[in-house]
Amino acid sequence: MKPIQVGILGIGTVGSGVFNVLQRNQEEIKRRAGRGIEVTMVSRRNVAEAQALVGDRAQVVADARAIIANPDIDIVVELIGGYTLAKELVLEAIAAGKHVVTANKALLAVHGTEIFAAAHAKGVMVAFEAAVAGGIPIIKALREGLTANSIQWVAGIINGTTNFILSEMRDKGLDFAVVLKEAQRLGYAEADPTFDIEGVDAAHKLTLMSAIAFGIPVQFDKAYVEGITQLGSQDIKYAEQLGYRIKLLGITKRTPQGVELRVHPSLVPAKRLIANVEGAMNAVVVQGDAVGTTLYYGKGAGSEPTASAVIADLVDITRLHTADPTNRVPHLAFQPDALSDLQVLPMGDVITSYYLRLRVADQAGVLATVTGLLAAADISIDAVLQREADEIGGEGATQTDVIILTHDCTESRMNAALAQMQALPTVLAPITRIRKEELA
Amino acid sequence: MKPIQVGILGIGTVGSGVFNVLQRNQEEIKRRAGRGIEVTMVSRRNVAEAQALVGDRAQVVADARAIIANPDIDIVVELIGGYTLAKELVLEAIAAGKHVVTANKALLAVHGTEIFAAAHAKGVMVAFEAAVAGGIPIIKALREGLTANSIQWVAGIINGTTNFILSEMRDKGLDFAVVLKEAQRLGYAEADPTFDIEGVDAAHKLTLMSAIAFGIPVQFDKAYVEGITQLGSQDIKYAEQLGYRIKLLGITKRTPQGVELRVHPSLVPAKRLIANVEGAMNAVVVQGDAVGTTLYYGKGAGSEPTASAVIADLVDITRLHTADPTNRVPHLAFQPDALSDLQVLPMGDVITSYYLRLRVADQAGVLATVTGLLAAADISIDAVLQREADEIGGEGATQTDVIILTHDCTESRMNAALAQMQALPTVLAPITRIRKEELA
Repeated sequence: MKPIQVGILGIGTVGSGVFNVLQRNQEEIKRRAGRGIEVTMVSRRNVAEAQALVGDRAQVVADARAIIANPDIDIVVELIGGYTLAKELVLEAIAAGKHVVTANKALLAVHGTEIFAAAHAKGVMVAFEAAVAGGIPIIKALREGLTANSIQWVAGIINGTTNFILSEMRDKGLDFAVVLKEAQRLGYAEADPTFDIEGVDAAHKLTLMSAIAFGIPVQFDKAYVEGITQLGSQDIKYAEQLGYRIKLLGITKRTPQGVELRVHPSLVPAKRLIANVEGAMNAVVVQGDAVGTTLYYGKGAGSEPTASAVIADLVDITRLHTADPTNRVPHLAFQPDALSDLQVLPMGDVITSYYLRLRVADQAGVLATVTGLLAAADISIDAVLQREADEIGGEGATQTDVIILTHDCTESRMNAALAQMQALPTVLAPITRIRKEELA
Repeated sequence: MKPIQVGILGIGTVGSGVFNVLQRNQEEIKRRAGRGIEVTMVSRRNVAEAQALVGDRAQVVADARAIIANPDIDIVVELIGGYTLAKELVLEAIAAGKHVVTANKALLAVHGTEIFAAAHAKGVMVAFEAAVAGGIPIIKALREGLTANSIQWVAGIINGTTNFILSEMRDKGLDFAVVLKEAQRLGYAEADPTFDIEGVDAAHKLTLMSAIAFGIPVQFDKAYVEGITQLGSQDIKYAEQLGYRIKLLGITKRTPQGVELRVHPSLVPAKRLIANVEGAMNAVVVQGDAVGTTLYYGKGAGSEPTASAVIADLVDITRLHTADPTNRVPHLAFQPDALSDLQVLPMGDVITSYYLRLRVADQAGVLATVTGLLAAADISIDAVLQREADEIGGEGATQTDVIILTHDCTESRMNAALAQMQALPTVLAPITRIRKEELA
């Protein structure tokens, strides 16, 4: 049987990983898939750069549409990224009857509904294991491995750049800006790191996991997104003293009121496995009603880890492309006519616990006033850590830090209490508020 | 479309989990599978006990063969366990054209070749996610999620009973026999715990993972199996001081000479995620050439975690039972005509590093003699920990412990060196030898 023919749109770091791993492991992959899988065409605006990656082992074209137009190509791998051209090309490939594999989380999180509908209508597959957590087969775990479960929540470290930065801030006691520069120097952060450090990349991935966990449409616009740029190294230290690590988590949770969909820095108990995921590694925790807690860990980015996920999709498609669409796993795990209309909760309605750090005047009664305000708002306190004034400002200091861990309350109630505390004349600086997740 | 009809052979703890989860989550599972899945028949020798589990919601029979004979049953779930009756029934179900789901690792590790050949000839599926690591979808990860990779090694904590015992020994400084009794009292160990504590259960599971990782037949008879019954709490303490934890690992590794297939206690660096898997939890680390290190963690046993895996298989079969067999994932991940003849290495040829504890006479020159023997055998030393005599026997003590960590050597070379060291008059007790795995 002749090999399945693959075309890569936008060959670069990931694309050359796909190309090289398919060549290196071709015999083993064929023994698994029952059929060879070959990249026969690749595209890149700069043809010479593409040629440098693949030599004469594949046809190189400048125009991605030449790949889509080639009737011999069975599967198109979209690695261009972004929303505009990538969307056009994916829709054109689907219209041409090609199966599509993509690593483009931004595209699917924003335009997934339109793309999956087009693919469903045409009877082709759109596979996206590489879009979330790189080489970790988390899409497959959620979509196929845990189908017995009513999934309760998913929480993940799904952005390696920010986890690297947070790990370095903790290890070395350095500030965000310093570590970001180091991360850029090492290639862990891009020249423009906005999408990573502001949490947008994590929110794209979380949106996809939320959809397949709960059977709801992708709705990135409803996600609450907060990055790590405001995080101070002193909060990492205080959290440590209280038995917690700070991680940028993507969290999606099913509640009777709706689905939580939020990315923000979170305190996590230090003894949890996920709290010990360091450097650029990713990990996702899934809580199901039957299975309990499961965790998936691995590299979330990089040429060959991402290629591993792309090729797993190619093998799946190789097996299933001749099958009836009903034999295939639905794109979003649930049958397209069986999606739920569970609403995404506004952030104000989300219930969680909190870490608060208040820079206060070092005088009698301040703590009583602050805790009185929380009590009046019906927010109960789990722990208080009050620093000696001299730990902060030396002899004769007049300011100190008060750290408060609260029990659960709604975000809107906390916001109201924060506004009241902030207005106190003895509260001398903007209050730091970091959410806390027990993940139990 | 009428629901897929499932019959459970041997309903008990896991079977009632399958029954209950399918009922509780039936709407959600149907939204995923595109079709309802119903347990309509169950068998158990004691019909009254089965009736107590399912009431009148399924037909209860004493004779499992009545389920196989029922033409309305699409899928048979075998939960009887053991090698004899279970094997007969699985083969009869296959011959009757039923798809089979089983949690029976012992059966597949020993008779898998015959069973998979029969299923292949008949064109039915035999699914066994529940046979390894309970609810963790590790079979799916290895068989489908990591198909791009040449898998280098797999190492897992795949027996919850022994991990619970080792965790308790470390936490509480107690001896094996004491903790085993506690584990039996709590239900973490069976009345006859032999299969668990001697490593046989782990070796069954490892045999299955090895086959699907490397594309070789199941060959449990070639596995090296060593349990935890000889493990002393002092070794757990010494390992801790050297920065290691002791875990019962199942390890299978591809080497140019052949495949390693071994279960034994292992020192693992304390900073590795898997070293921090505590209690009855399971975790499997997979090293692939493209993806790097990935880890999968969750509950390895119990009614509903195991049911989660059984039902995931039921959903897969529901999707694929009308497909051509070429559209399905091969039983052992590789096409049946493409299995490799890579041989399982005899334990003597396995290369690893070692922890040695020698009870020696507390006199000058002993350490020099011992390390001289290792040097003569070309075994290099990584670290030595020598206890003060008074730490062991108090004032005037004449014995002490010497702990040696070695670098890599073959097991046979280590065995020869151990025999020489053991023969020294200054070595006063049987030498403790525990293998060490860096898992890097």
